[in-house]
Amino acid sequence: MKDYLCDKGKKVADAVIRRLPRYYRQLCYLESQNISRISSNALGESLDLKATQIRQDLNSFGGFGQQGYGYPVSELRDIIADILSINSQWKMVIVGAGNIGRALSGYDEFMLEGFQILALFDNDKAMVDKQFGRMPVYDVSTLADYIKENHVDIVALAVPSRVTQSLADLSIRAGANAIWNFAPVDVFCDDVVVENIHLTDSLMALSYNLGQKLK
Amino acid sequence: MKDYLCDKGKKVADAVIRRLPRYYRQLCYLESQNISRISSNALGESLDLKATQIRQDLNSFGGFGQQGYGYPVSELRDIIADILSINSQWKMVIVGAGNIGRALSGYDEFMLEGFQILALFDNDKAMVDKQFGRMPVYDVSTLADYIKENHVDIVALAVPSRVTQSLADLSIRAGANAIWNFAPVDVFCDDVVVENIHLTDSLMALSYNLGQKLK
Repeated sequence: MKDYLCDKGKKVADAVIRRLPRYYRQLCYLESQNISRISSNALGESLDLKATQIRQDLNSFGGFGQQGYGYPVSELRDIIADILSINSQWKMVIVGAGNIGRALSGYDEFMLEGFQILALFDNDKAMVDKQFGRMPVYDVSTLADYIKENHVDIVALAVPSRVTQSLADLSIRAGANAIWNFAPVDVFCDDVVVENIHLTDSLMALSYNLGQKLK
Repeated sequence: MKDYLCDKGKKVADAVIRRLPRYYRQLCYLESQNISRISSNALGESLDLKATQIRQDLNSFGGFGQQGYGYPVSELRDIIADILSINSQWKMVIVGAGNIGRALSGYDEFMLEGFQILALFDNDKAMVDKQFGRMPVYDVSTLADYIKENHVDIVALAVPSRVTQSLADLSIRAGANAIWNFAPVDVFCDDVVVENIHLTDSLMALSYNLGQKLK
């Protein structure tokens, strides 16, 4: 990461980090529309956010753009990609070749953003050594060796809840630095990045809001 | 929702709502282990949260449990289910019978929590009138009529970004009250519940944290 992006040791709030992909997506779209500069007001309107929020978020990383001139679209997109460490060619494997695992392995969007999916793993002998699309399926008993040999960064776990923590532990011992967890359980790992996609939790939050709306 | 759950007109913070499914999951687990009471300390430890956080969250809904006696597990689980409006038998359809759509339609967990998935919709004639598991696939041109006739509450959109907003608009005009969006775009709808699963955004947040860790 370049020096001007340095956050000078300050920890940036998680909520800010979670807005950056939205900025990134919108900037990619603007670039595809041949728009070369955008004001924080216009960017805010397109994202249903306040301009002050956007300026404040970007100031966490040093601030970019020039007062009255707006942000240069391509440059800001590249800076945000840099902050997010995408385009780093992180190496990922997916454990669990069920519906979710196969869906992830076929999601071309990830490749475009610099995530290289290497393989699927499963414990079902009927699946092992098959291919889904271009993706090979290996026996989960070979997972640790594969992670070590291929310097895998991210392990996506789309497996039953009861085996999620043990597979996370195994992956980390083998050298993985991040777990992307799709099982409806919390994964606890020290000194490792854990990111969760809890589909049922998301649906429950939706249900709460729906209940409130229809009350 | 019962009266004692009433939040007396106060809007509960989104962060609180998003912790409730975690409490719910843990309470289900505790019940399966025949544990009938739990202190906020023990519940906090198992979830890596402070006991004060848990007490404060539950107090948003009136507070339950008795000082020094902890919370009754089954009762608190039922109360949280009630707050979240799960077990309401919300009716859901899934638009897009690609990898993600099919994964969602096969996710039995949703049924257990009171979400009834009725059908898949797609515009690919080769898929229409087929079945995935027990799930029928209908032509997306019939979506609006289907929503009206079957009083569909929730429309899950697992479709390309470019058609997401128009399908959300169509669904809402037909009477749906919530959109569960899986496309990597923001959906804007007035007076309707929108909940997003942005896989790429989640992976970008993971990438940021991984970049920070390895710096």
